[in-house]
This record gives sequence, structure tokens and C-alpha cells, in this order.
Amino acid sequence: MTKPSIPKGTRDFNALEMARRNYIFDTVKQVFQLYGYQQIETPAMEQMASLMGKYGEEGDKLLFRIQNSGEKAAEAPEKGLRYDLTVPFARFVVQHRDELQFPFRRFQIQPVWRADRPQKGRYREFYQCDVDVIGSESLMNEVELIQIVEEVYRRFGMRVCLHLNNRKILAGIAEVIGAPDKMMDITVAIDKLDKIGLDKVNEELLERGLSQEAVDKLQPILSMTGDNEAKLQTIGTLLAGSEVGTLGVQETASVLAAVKQLEVALPIELDLTLARGLNYYTGAIFEVKALDVQIGSITGGGRYDNLTGIFGLPGVSGVGISFGADRIYDCLTELNLYPAAMLDQTQVLFVTFGDAELQYAAVAARQLRQQGVRVEVYPEPAKMKKQMAYADAKQVPFVAIVGGDEMANGTVMLKNMATGEQQQVAIDKIEEVIR
Amino acid sequence: MTKPSIPKGTRDFNALEMARRNYIFDTVKQVFQLYGYQQIETPAMEQMASLMGKYGEEGDKLLFRIQNSGEKAAEAPEKGLRYDLTVPFARFVVQHRDELQFPFRRFQIQPVWRADRPQKGRYREFYQCDVDVIGSESLMNEVELIQIVEEVYRRFGMRVCLHLNNRKILAGIAEVIGAPDKMMDITVAIDKLDKIGLDKVNEELLERGLSQEAVDKLQPILSMTGDNEAKLQTIGTLLAGSEVGTLGVQETASVLAAVKQLEVALPIELDLTLARGLNYYTGAIFEVKALDVQIGSITGGGRYDNLTGIFGLPGVSGVGISFGADRIYDCLTELNLYPAAMLDQTQVLFVTFGDAELQYAAVAARQLRQQGVRVEVYPEPAKMKKQMAYADAKQVPFVAIVGGDEMANGTVMLKNMATGEQQQVAIDKIEEVIR
Repeated sequence: MTKPSIPKGTRDFNALEMARRNYIFDTVKQVFQLYGYQQIETPAMEQMASLMGKYGEEGDKLLFRIQNSGEKAAEAPEKGLRYDLTVPFARFVVQHRDELQFPFRRFQIQPVWRADRPQKGRYREFYQCDVDVIGSESLMNEVELIQIVEEVYRRFGMRVCLHLNNRKILAGIAEVIGAPDKMMDITVAIDKLDKIGLDKVNEELLERGLSQEAVDKLQPILSMTGDNEAKLQTIGTLLAGSEVGTLGVQETASVLAAVKQLEVALPIELDLTLARGLNYYTGAIFEVKALDVQIGSITGGGRYDNLTGIFGLPGVSGVGISFGADRIYDCLTELNLYPAAMLDQTQVLFVTFGDAELQYAAVAARQLRQQGVRVEVYPEPAKMKKQMAYADAKQVPFVAIVGGDEMANGTVMLKNMATGEQQQVAIDKIEEVIR
Repeated sequence: MTKPSIPKGTRDFNALEMARRNYIFDTVKQVFQLYGYQQIETPAMEQMASLMGKYGEEGDKLLFRIQNSGEKAAEAPEKGLRYDLTVPFARFVVQHRDELQFPFRRFQIQPVWRADRPQKGRYREFYQCDVDVIGSESLMNEVELIQIVEEVYRRFGMRVCLHLNNRKILAGIAEVIGAPDKMMDITVAIDKLDKIGLDKVNEELLERGLSQEAVDKLQPILSMTGDNEAKLQTIGTLLAGSEVGTLGVQETASVLAAVKQLEVALPIELDLTLARGLNYYTGAIFEVKALDVQIGSITGGGRYDNLTGIFGLPGVSGVGISFGADRIYDCLTELNLYPAAMLDQTQVLFVTFGDAELQYAAVAARQLRQQGVRVEVYPEPAKMKKQMAYADAKQVPFVAIVGGDEMANGTVMLKNMATGEQQQVAIDKIEEVIR
């Protein structure tokens, strides 16, 4: 028989990996709850009709389809695996709208599946951690999401920078330079400024079909310098004639002012090159980058004005962000930022050399567990060496050795595995000693 | 557009349901960890070759198959959704055996999928909570699992009874009455004793092909009375001539003696009618029933001697149990046993009537969150009635109302939603008042 395997692009998670992942999930969850967001879950399978056409042509091809098992096709509409958490959330809101309170603040931490070609750091099954508020147009929501980002990474001990953009600003720029259909081209070109320089960017803009006049009008944006306020000033002047653009500048200024007033300790950079989700975001766009790890975006999101429209409920505005658990995992690993006591591992292992000792250990272990101590009893009186090797491999901090003397005295020989020290300790004193 | 829906047999979970489910998962998880069990996770998809033939002919039909999306079949072996956690665990152990410490204590809490016909209480997607130790034949493991059952239901506040059987006893009985191939028939017949009476059971046994002599020999078992010890005595006498039967009696006696010595406060009933998993369990068989809810088995498991044999690693013995999260959920709901503070819900909602008040509330909320209080700010200065209705619907215990006076004083008007009392409280005193 060949060694068993798992499908390409999927992963098993062992105890250490699970402890680290749980640390990430628990941390974001606690922060989400601090802001009143509530958890929901949706099924792994959605109706194919709910998924198709929601992720573009390319996305449709990456959907995993479920075969109906022995059912007639007419009875059972086709199903597919969840591709992200956003579309199921929109479906959930529409389906349950009469039971929900709006503004509805929800978070969702579940796996998604994509039939992408697997490669380093890209999997066919991975978790998303999404936090969204729907049914409110207030910019206070943007401000709160920024605070959530600040608090999550403060708890992780990671230095990050939040890049902020606004689709309305991009639309305004395209409008005032007279190329309203070239918003994406302009954004992509600006993004290359650092790499290829102003001259090449201008060349590329002309190649992409912008007029010389449009390119000329864009120069103040391409050459602007200074902090966020200075940049907003430059942009505001350029966009004075555009209603949508001016609104975008006002929204961004308002968010930045609120963040400043709250003394949010998170570097925020106004970044017009941020082109994330331009086909569905309608206002603010966020992206978070780690400052000490080369890994790309680790969190991102934005404001959407018509998410539930795809399921027949138009005019509901929302804003949300998604934390990339796999990339955060890689960052925390590379930066060695996991807390030492994170693994809820065994604190004491009982080691015995006979059946009577094993029974004695079982009673002692029961008593310790009632005190809240995580205890294992090596389940058989194996050789000392084997039991100690088990303790070493599992990195158990204390081993309680039980022999005849200990049984006679009501004690154990308690060995501190880090220092090698050992002492006889009465059973009811073990908890005190190991704390 | 028609109202969106989800596939038959699947469920959405709202905030209250999630809080209850998390309470169940967290409780079993904490108990598993108290005994040194470590969490693992496996992918939702397994190779079809890992799943086929593992659940009998009927099970094969209930597997959900995944269609390969645009890949050549030769490149991508067929995949299916996980049907239970046991087969993926066996696959995991064999695949990672060189990295694991044995005895390997693992738990796993993940959804499984079965293309069963959906009905009340039976879903196509549901969670299993499995806890197993593999690589040890010691009966200490059975004793620990019984203690885990005791502790889990003690924490839930549920009265349960653990039914205990042993496949070796059943095999011994079939052997000594001269019908070694009739083990299942005998078990099924004994199970009907309460319902149809001794005479009918004897008739049925003859119909099922047992000889009159075999039925006669079975009479001491069918008519035995008394507590577990008395029953074991009766069985032991009958099985004196059977090696496997005697071993089963010894194992059971040994487990019951250890449980008694440990003063386990869980009713345990020796129950020969327990026929769970007779095709793979080889020793102890467990089943837990709620005493105050009519719902069938809520937890079950047993000892298996060759689980990993299906993946080419023979001779590894293990024992495990599975907690049925959906049925436990129904029990706790029916018995109203969820703790009041279980829902990690918002503790204070800020209600405001203007933009300046909203900014003031944002600062106050930030301060409270730094003290660990879960706070929401209603994100826009909507009508009082609307904001209070939101607080009511979400059952927020305290509302902090901000008007001009409060802003001038550095206070809020704090309303206790349960009593209706309200008082002006300085922002830095709110945390004290609501605790």
C-alpha cells in the first residue's frame, strides 16, 4: 500500500500549528468582540447559482463543484464550495434580513476553497477572517475598522502600515483629466512611479490611450510630496471641479481627522496606487502591510455600496476588512512573536513503573485536574527512558515520578525538566510548586 | 430575483447559535486539554481513494465528490469531502507517524459531510468532536475517557448515564453457546428484551437460526439481574470456557474497578445490548445517554485494534470517543443550561444625537475598550427611538447616552436597560459602575 496523501494544495495542521492558528483566530475574535461584532457561520456548500458570476470569469473557473450523490439533478440544484466569505455573507444578510438588527456587525472565520494552481503560500483550502458592518453609511465604521487593525497588530506585537485610498478620489482624477474610463490604467501607472520613474510613467500613460492634455493634468498628482494632509491638499485642489472627487477627498480627510483625534498609534499612508477591489469597492479602500516582513498585503478591505444587490436587496452600504490568517501566521513565525505559554500543553506528566503506581498516579492526576492543572499519565508502566523521552519530545515542563517510596509517603518525585532539579512533593502541594 | 437559499440539509448559524456552539466546543476542548489531548485539523477534502470502502457500501454512496475544475483527471486524483474524523485521523497518523509521539493523544473538532436524506436532527453538514489516543493498549485510556465524559457533562450541568459494553464479551457469548457467527443477532435480540419479553426474544433467536441448545445456554444472560458486579459475575461464570470472553470480562471488571477507586461520579451501566460499531471496535464500547432528554446517544466510541491498518500500518491499538455537538446543543437548549454570560456580547452601547457627540463617544468608547469593556458606538446620530430599539434587540445591558450636558461635564447618562435606572457617570467611572 502506498503512503497515504492529501489533495494537492491542502494541508494537515499538527498540534503546534493548531496552537499558533488558534492564537491568531482567538486574538482577532477578541478584538472583533470588543467592537460589538458577532460571529456567524455559513455552510461550506452554497447553491452554484449563488456563486456563479460573482467572482468574474476567472473566478467561476476556480469554483469547486460538488457532485450530487445519486440524486436526480432536478431535485438537487448544483452545489459548490464557498470561494470567499463575502458572497455567503451577502446571501446570509438577504436571506435573514428580517431577523437581523441593522447596522449589522458580523465576523466570520471559516475556510474557503479555490481551485487555483497551488504554489508557495497559495493553497486550495485556506481560512479567511472577515469583519464587516452592513446597513450604515457612517464613516465612523471606517474609523472603527482602522482601530481594529491597530489593536489586532498591537496584540500580535507586529509593526504594520495601513495604506488608505478612496475609489471616489480615483474616479475624480479620471474625471477631471478627461479620461473617466481610464481609472485603472492611471492607478496602475502611478503604482510604477517608484520603479520606473516619472518619464516612463508618462510614456506608459500615453501608450494606454491618455491624451497629452490628460497626462499634463495628472502631473501634480504624480509629483506630489509631503504627508497625508499635504497630499490631500494637492488632490483637493485638482479635484475641486469634480463632485465625486471632492466627496472622496472629504471622506478621506474626515477619516484621517477622526483617527488623529483618537490618537490611533498606527502609521497610515494615503496611497493612490491602492487598486484593490476597484470593481466592487465604492469608497474607502484599505490594505495593511507588515513593516518587518516582505510578504505583501496581510489585511485588506473597503466600503461597498451594493453588496447585497446581487441577491436582490439594493441600496445597503457596508464596509469590511479581511485578515489573512496564513500570511499573519508566516509573519509571526518569522518574527518569532508567538507567546511562550500559547500552547495549552500538558503541565505535568506522571511516570510510573508498575500497576499499583499507575493507579496511585491516576488518583493524584485526578486531584490535580480538579485544581485546573493539565495532566497526563503515561498510560502504561513502560521503561523509564521511553517515558522520559515522551516527556522531552512533548516539552512537558514537569514530570512526576512515582515509585514505592512516593506511594508510601503520599508524594511524587517532581522533576523540573528545564533545570533538571527534582524534589519530593506531597500530592496536594504539586499545584503550588509548578505555578 | 428569488430569495436566496442554501443547499438542503445545511444550515446558517446566527450570533446566538454561534455563541452556544462555541460554548460547547470550548467546554469539550478545555476538558480534552486537561487530559493532555492536542488539537489537529485535516483538510475538508481527502483523496477519494482514502475514503472509498471505509464506510461500507452504503457509506460509499453518501460521499460527496468534488469535481476537478478544468484539470486533467490523470493529474488530479478524484477528491471527496470528509465523511467522519476517524478515517482522516487514521490517514494522518500513518502519513505523519515519524513526527508523532506515541501514545498520541489528539482531538479534532471539524465539520463532516454526508449525502444523507436530510430530516429532523439529521444534516448533510455537521460537526464532530473526536478525542482519541492511539498507540497504547492500556485500559487506563478507557478509564481516562470515562473521566472526560464525566467532566464534560459535569461542566454542562447535564445528568447522563454511560453505557459500557465489550466486544470480547459478545464474541465470548457467541462462542460458548456454539454460534460464533451470530454475535450481532444475539445482541439485537437482547436489545428487545424490555420491549417484547423473554419468550418472544427466545422465539426470535430460533428464527434467526440459533439452535435450541444455544438459546438454552443463553438464558442466564437473558435473565440476569443486579448491579454491574453481579452481572459481570454471571457473565464470567458463563464465559469461563472462552478465552476471548474471559478477557472481555477481565477488561470490563478492571475498568469498572479503576473508575470506582477514582470515585467517578458518573452512572455507568454494563449494557450487553450496545452494538455500536461492532464491525470495527475490538474491546470496550461506550455510549452516553442523556437522563433528562429523549434524544438517543449523545456521545459514543470504543477501542479499535487496527484502525491504521487500512492505510498500511497494522497493529496500532487505540481508543476514542466522539461528542455529538448537535444533539448536545439540543439538550442544553431544552434543559435551558446555557450560562447567562456565555454570549460575548456588547456591554455598553453609546447613543448620540450629533456629530460632535459621536466624536466624543468615539473617544470614550476607545478608553473603555482599553479597559477591556466590549463597546459599540451607534455609528450615526439617528433618532433616539431607533438607537434604543437597536440596544433592546441586541440585549445590550447598558446604554451610554451623550448630549450637550454630558459633553460639557465629561460624563455620559448611563442607563441600566434591565432596571431602567439612569445616572450621570464620569467616563473613567463607567467601567466601575457596569462591573
